[in-house]
Amino acid sequence: MDQKQSPQRPRNEVRRLPERGVYDREVIHAILDEALICHVGFITDRGPVVIPTIHARVGDILYLHGSPASRMLRTVPDAEVCITATLVDGIVAARSTFHHSMNYRSVVVFGVPRVVTDPDERSAAFEAITEHVLPGRWTEARQPNDREDKATKLLAVTIEDASAKVRTGPPGDEDEDMNLDIWAGVIPLGVVAGKPVSAPDLKPGVEMSEAALRRTAGGSGTSTTES
Amino acid sequence: MDQKQSPQRPRNEVRRLPERGVYDREVIHAILDEALICHVGFITDRGPVVIPTIHARVGDILYLHGSPASRMLRTVPDAEVCITATLVDGIVAARSTFHHSMNYRSVVVFGVPRVVTDPDERSAAFEAITEHVLPGRWTEARQPNDREDKATKLLAVTIEDASAKVRTGPPGDEDEDMNLDIWAGVIPLGVVAGKPVSAPDLKPGVEMSEAALRRTAGGSGTSTTES
Repeated sequence: MDQKQSPQRPRNEVRRLPERGVYDREVIHAILDEALICHVGFITDRGPVVIPTIHARVGDILYLHGSPASRMLRTVPDAEVCITATLVDGIVAARSTFHHSMNYRSVVVFGVPRVVTDPDERSAAFEAITEHVLPGRWTEARQPNDREDKATKLLAVTIEDASAKVRTGPPGDEDEDMNLDIWAGVIPLGVVAGKPVSAPDLKPGVEMSEAALRRTAGGSGTSTTES
Repeated sequence: MDQKQSPQRPRNEVRRLPERGVYDREVIHAILDEALICHVGFITDRGPVVIPTIHARVGDILYLHGSPASRMLRTVPDAEVCITATLVDGIVAARSTFHHSMNYRSVVVFGVPRVVTDPDERSAAFEAITEHVLPGRWTEARQPNDREDKATKLLAVTIEDASAKVRTGPPGDEDEDMNLDIWAGVIPLGVVAGKPVSAPDLKPGVEMSEAALRRTAGGSGTSTTES
């Protein structure tokens, strides 16, 4: 088996439209890194629950964090989870409504999370989570103190039982529809960051965050003084 | 109980940060309508699975559709599902890394889907799904024929056991951090549609879709002839 590919076990096998299934580890990592949030599925005594949350990847490990009191973080250690991250890249408008679709990239990761207690691993994961959402922010902001560290539960899932599913390109219409006078194509979609909005109680004279400027579309990276 | 609110049963109760939990039916509907996709969680014999898919709402009913062969659509009728739709509105950059967060709006719907077989309900749901993704497209495109209708499984979930969770506004930093020389604020995020890309095999002379133009940011709605 190619070392760069996830093992194709029955559960992570992409069942429908197998041509869209990709198992390349780099593809899986890239999708997880680009997605700002993921959706975590777990089983409660009343059925399945799916919760959106922030994640970050370090190597082959996916980290989730939150309050120790959160239902998700109380429920999932030592229980199976499914973590799904999805990027929506476009609306696929076919000649037929039937062949309308989305262009997207998604990753599904299965695993049993472990609670992370090692101080070094925790610190590296907290940095990764902050940097995932806003690259460059870890060194700009005040880093966690002991009280905040104690107030954060950290879970790790090894990215092993995982797969990606990708759709790209134009619509796939029926041959019989190709001569219809109906436009077909793709409307590209993307997430765009607007101009940073300073907190109303920002200390006068504090400079705009370089990380925020870089994150913003068309952000020049030039410092501006906010007051 | 206010008729406009979902019943607050134990499962849909927002446990953490209750100030972010909202149960207003109009808020729940608006989030479901704005979200292009949702994530459906269901239980398989090997654990929880979360799959992204397109949805549409008609009144108090949420529709999901797909191939009769899809694992999700084979698994979930008569079994509990959790359908979660999330809109990411901004990155919340606090002075402390601990208080970094996201502005978002999410909805969680619990239910047991039923398979929709009634022809009128099916047709209305297919229209709603097409219109959800691309308003105005249903009447532009070729609508489903009998073969396509048979090839589409349609599930309905009543939006009853549901809740929304919303975070808006600036970061909530600790009092002791307010005098730090660290920028704090929000970087707004939104989904933007680019210029429609015509299919390479588009019939010469077919006009650009009005629906696609309206969907595109800055789209004027003016027809242009593509070739």
